Amino acid sequence: MDNINLKFGKKLRQLRTERNMTQEELAEKSGIDYKYLQKLEGQSPSSPTLSTLEKLAVGLDITIIQLLSDIQ
Amino acid sequence: MDNINLKFGKKLRQLRTERNMTQEELAEKSGIDYKYLQKLEGQSPSSPTLSTLEKLAVGLDITIIQLLSDIQ
Repeated sequence: MDNINLKFGKKLRQLRTERNMTQEELAEKSGIDYKYLQKLEGQSPSSPTLSTLEKLAVGLDITIIQLLSDIQ
Repeated sequence: MDNINLKFGKKLRQLRTERNMTQEELAEKSGIDYKYLQKLEGQSPSSPTLSTLEKLAVGLDITIIQLLSDIQ
């Protein structure tokens, strides 16, 4: 577990499941593509942009700071 | 000043100039392309990825959290 994108994907999955949200629900609430969300949580994630991070924070009802805390 | 990428670009410029770094110096220290850094600080910035945010944080000797604080 080294790459920041892998660490982010793991954190994203944790935040989503803590809220009992499926990937479909979070993708819809965030306004991002479901397949892309799957990739972000997967084993070879692409690196999300700041715009995507903002959308995910909105979808999870948290701030970007909370979304990224303790992944560096 | 609404778009998060514009707000980030403004914050990045502020952090860089506070440290009396030129764009060339920060680009080199961060290991990112100088032209790309200019675009991030410009008026129509692209959205930096999490990997780029990590590199910029390293180049500025701060954390990603500090880099993104108060831009949302």
